[in-house]
Amino acid sequence: MNQRKQRQSAEQFIHNLQGQSFPQSQKVYVRGSRADLNVPMRQITLTPTVTEQGSRPNQAVCVYDTSGSYGDPDAQIDVRKGLIRIRQNWIDERADCEPLMQKSSLYTRQRDENQGFDAIRFTNKALPIRAKLGHVVTQLHYARAGIITPEMEYIAIRENCARDKARQDVLLQQHAGESFGAAIPDVITAEFVRSEVARGRAIIPANINHPECEPMIIGRNFLVKVNANIGNSAVSSSIEEEVEKLVWATRWGADTVMDLSTGRHIHETREWIIRNSAVPIGTVPVYQALEKVNGVAEDLNWEMFRDTLIEQAEQGVDYFTIHAGLRLAHIPLTTSRVTGIVSRGGSIMAKWCLAHHQENFLYSHFAEICQICQRYDVSLSLGDGLRPGSVADANDRAQFAELETLGELAKIASQHEVQVIIEGPGHIPMQLIKANMDKQLEVCNEAPFYTLGPLVTDISPGYDHISSGIGAAMIGWYGCAMLCYVTPKEHLGLPDKDDVKQGLIAYKIAAHAADLAKGHPGAQIRDNAMSLARFEFRWEDQFNLALDPDTARSYHDATLPQQSARTAHFCSMCGPKFCSMKISQEIRTTHFDSKEIAVTELAKSDEKARGLQEKSRQFRAHGSEIYLSAASGDDHE
Amino acid sequence: MNQRKQRQSAEQFIHNLQGQSFPQSQKVYVRGSRADLNVPMRQITLTPTVTEQGSRPNQAVCVYDTSGSYGDPDAQIDVRKGLIRIRQNWIDERADCEPLMQKSSLYTRQRDENQGFDAIRFTNKALPIRAKLGHVVTQLHYARAGIITPEMEYIAIRENCARDKARQDVLLQQHAGESFGAAIPDVITAEFVRSEVARGRAIIPANINHPECEPMIIGRNFLVKVNANIGNSAVSSSIEEEVEKLVWATRWGADTVMDLSTGRHIHETREWIIRNSAVPIGTVPVYQALEKVNGVAEDLNWEMFRDTLIEQAEQGVDYFTIHAGLRLAHIPLTTSRVTGIVSRGGSIMAKWCLAHHQENFLYSHFAEICQICQRYDVSLSLGDGLRPGSVADANDRAQFAELETLGELAKIASQHEVQVIIEGPGHIPMQLIKANMDKQLEVCNEAPFYTLGPLVTDISPGYDHISSGIGAAMIGWYGCAMLCYVTPKEHLGLPDKDDVKQGLIAYKIAAHAADLAKGHPGAQIRDNAMSLARFEFRWEDQFNLALDPDTARSYHDATLPQQSARTAHFCSMCGPKFCSMKISQEIRTTHFDSKEIAVTELAKSDEKARGLQEKSRQFRAHGSEIYLSAASGDDHE
Repeated sequence: MNQRKQRQSAEQFIHNLQGQSFPQSQKVYVRGSRADLNVPMRQITLTPTVTEQGSRPNQAVCVYDTSGSYGDPDAQIDVRKGLIRIRQNWIDERADCEPLMQKSSLYTRQRDENQGFDAIRFTNKALPIRAKLGHVVTQLHYARAGIITPEMEYIAIRENCARDKARQDVLLQQHAGESFGAAIPDVITAEFVRSEVARGRAIIPANINHPECEPMIIGRNFLVKVNANIGNSAVSSSIEEEVEKLVWATRWGADTVMDLSTGRHIHETREWIIRNSAVPIGTVPVYQALEKVNGVAEDLNWEMFRDTLIEQAEQGVDYFTIHAGLRLAHIPLTTSRVTGIVSRGGSIMAKWCLAHHQENFLYSHFAEICQICQRYDVSLSLGDGLRPGSVADANDRAQFAELETLGELAKIASQHEVQVIIEGPGHIPMQLIKANMDKQLEVCNEAPFYTLGPLVTDISPGYDHISSGIGAAMIGWYGCAMLCYVTPKEHLGLPDKDDVKQGLIAYKIAAHAADLAKGHPGAQIRDNAMSLARFEFRWEDQFNLALDPDTARSYHDATLPQQSARTAHFCSMCGPKFCSMKISQEIRTTHFDSKEIAVTELAKSDEKARGLQEKSRQFRAHGSEIYLSAASGDDHE
Repeated sequence: MNQRKQRQSAEQFIHNLQGQSFPQSQKVYVRGSRADLNVPMRQITLTPTVTEQGSRPNQAVCVYDTSGSYGDPDAQIDVRKGLIRIRQNWIDERADCEPLMQKSSLYTRQRDENQGFDAIRFTNKALPIRAKLGHVVTQLHYARAGIITPEMEYIAIRENCARDKARQDVLLQQHAGESFGAAIPDVITAEFVRSEVARGRAIIPANINHPECEPMIIGRNFLVKVNANIGNSAVSSSIEEEVEKLVWATRWGADTVMDLSTGRHIHETREWIIRNSAVPIGTVPVYQALEKVNGVAEDLNWEMFRDTLIEQAEQGVDYFTIHAGLRLAHIPLTTSRVTGIVSRGGSIMAKWCLAHHQENFLYSHFAEICQICQRYDVSLSLGDGLRPGSVADANDRAQFAELETLGELAKIASQHEVQVIIEGPGHIPMQLIKANMDKQLEVCNEAPFYTLGPLVTDISPGYDHISSGIGAAMIGWYGCAMLCYVTPKEHLGLPDKDDVKQGLIAYKIAAHAADLAKGHPGAQIRDNAMSLARFEFRWEDQFNLALDPDTARSYHDATLPQQSARTAHFCSMCGPKFCSMKISQEIRTTHFDSKEIAVTELAKSDEKARGLQEKSRQFRAHGSEIYLSAASGDDHE
């Protein structure tokens, strides 16, 4: 496929996707305190419950929505124009930024002047802005100053997921959580968002040059978030494919997306991605820096790295992964490892350190990095260059020595009012996961943790989304704020679109399981709605409430292809006679007319044998006929 | 497809499967103390490590093998004859059984006489045997009598997985586990197997009428096991398909298989399955009993249930799920549940109890059930008819009241020297899982726990193998002895072959992760071998060590289709310049000639700035050229 054809196909794809929001789902907007503050959610409409007594409506369920305008059938999407700049007013109103007449990065200026890239350039670009001299424009700065920004209010509304509108008690029931010391309030207020950001326990990745971004928050007192990595490599994939993956990833729930491109056209690819992204975009700037020195790690230097940071900050990158915690003195700690250094950024910096026998220049220039970030509100994600790449290397001295350094750096970032999160492993057997979380909280002063998995075994290539999903759910429960997904292709190749989806579904499961386990308020609503739909054989509602309605529907269809069976009160698992749900429903409706009375009465049934025969007669009179008519089931046996 | 064609195709399938053991894998047999005691394992041959200094062999890795003769290219398979009866001598030698001139079950005799079933009957059947009057022939009986049976010796060899042959220290390194009070020895001896069975902490499901079965053990001081459910329903699938699924399930690691058939020909299907199964077969007898009364639960009675137990015991079923713990008085506890009773067996018995207003006849006749089991060595799996079918219903009074009853029943089984395990949930959010395990250990006197998942959220239909895999890994770590798999079709339909595989891989990951976390000796060998292969770019070894070599290989091929790339020292994830593994290897080989010296020296490098320039010069002299040549990677970034 040539480049034009590829682009056409990608645009067609985005166009198609836009028209296909989830089934029985509506994009709704919850209005905040101002007309330009409208928080998107996805509302899933449910069918009524039909009984012999008539029909009873079931309330729609609102779910967190990361799909941006792509999930809104009324929105006009044009990838050449980019998304609407919903934050532009808010940024302008603060009046602490100024447009730049000239881009600050030398590389960007050279690139812009090179007509060879005209064909692949995103053209509808505003001038970049930057904090006025002497100003800090980070959400952390505002939070500490006691200012509740529109971003914070937006997030508060978003995190509550309109759960105050849920009226059915049965939907609201929820188990007490175990949050291991988190401080999750019953209702997220804008003031709570501000206070958590001010304390450094949460970040709002929101570069002033990415006004298209729908604000979101990363912190352990909020919903657990999921990051999806995309990005081409020198070996495969194009700009269009990457934009397509971005849209696809946010459709399936990616809260942030990292562009890990390493091939040609990194600069141009990134521009297309940011302009079309409603979620924060993260990068690993050293990847591009290395491209600029033709892959020779030894040739990296602070000046060109600095220029790369500014280049990316002015494009609108929301967070940078910086491997500043890998110090020269840590490297020898990795020599006895089974898998050495497995972080790409980490190995590049280790190579640089050894070649120069100098301290990592990202460490020595860390304050300057912060000074750049504070002028664009780029958040820092402190990379764990020494994370273990195998179960064998988990929790070793190299890993924890670096983590301690990350704690020091987090303090420096905080002093510069730069928002900061900490990256974590990797490959960790289950019994060693909690120690990671506990140590991170301790040495990083509760800065949000952001982990890759962790994988709980090494022997599952092809299924590492599952083995890492196990670790991700657990560390999310223990307090990790964001989970970096792993796809089935991990360790084997670059993920394609289906891999991206598989990785995201596995991680949405992990993140949601963590929310439930922590006792996040309202987290159980969707589960309860699903379970009620299950018990009442509302198959369509089950599909529509699922994380992946398409797959749920197609699996059900596969075994029972006829339309009648698809809505039948049984499924192929158990067949018409063995359906536990059906039998259980019948027991309830024919026997326990009034639950309260029945419970009291029957609980004592051992003692009062008299009357049993009468009950038996009643039950048979009611039940037998219904029982023979249909059946369906849940678990197998 | 007509029946004959279907059967031909299934036989062809089994024939094909037999010729295709895993790549670079050999079936090996470890000889025990007698000539007829040969324990199968799968030995994965690895390629040598090639360095500039020459090549170094890598030791083969032995893994636990559930595939039976199907995994042995030298075995003669004929599904019409069934597998070799490897335990026949051992059973005969004990001289406590006698052949039955006539089958004891009335139903079986009627069925045998009915020529209408001749076409689908398995014909190469030996006469059933039974304990001589007054004898108990359970492994528990022998264990308590201090007898180490050949089955116990077989299991001891099997559980050790020949790890005493692993010679490379790097393979044997392992993290300390957290076993929550389990008592896992460094080496499993036959005497240890005996003592665990005697204490009721482990069972060996091994019906004397299933001599084809390769002995295995279920207990928390042994490797965590996985069960796969198969079985047709009235709506779909045939005998041949079920035998095919059995073979397929054991290929992918099923330690036991439950035949949950509910359609026509249950009796005949089961015979084909047992005669061709090298793993223990479990059933839920009430399913067949219900078929016998045309699906009318009210018409069930003890006499026909008893006949069904005997019918199945004489066919060779190794364990029965019996829902005897669901008592009449428990049923009202379910009325306020979101999803009522979701166990099929449980809902059938609840219906019976209510219709008759009598105590569950499985409870009242439990001692008689034990008396049947002890004469055939059928183990009991006490069903959790009141397990929660939704997160909302987790850990409620109904569930725990039944669990307490299961504890009482386990005691009765033990008094009858009948082996017993306890079934568990279901749907449980993460923070409530451990309470299940702890309570089970407490009230069931450490009898092995056998859980379905648990699913940690309800919103993932189509991916419930993942959400339940999370719960399964955790409860396996906490002490659960066997995990009943859940396939992607759970809640939606009957699993097909690919679903069976997907479910098994997810559960093999969960079980293995649990073994690692508990610190099961030798559990980390395969992980270490994988990680070493990864670090050394031995791609073929990575594929062959994977739980699913086919998928790992095909995923790697998909992105880099050329043969040269497939063996290249980089992969498509990072491309040639960004490979962390490659860089890390270079750092090690070019810089740290002697690990010890380098560590000491470099750790102090901060303090001794002198000499750094020289080091830098050395490194460049060694490293630059290698670095430019190739690269590959592990994790993404």
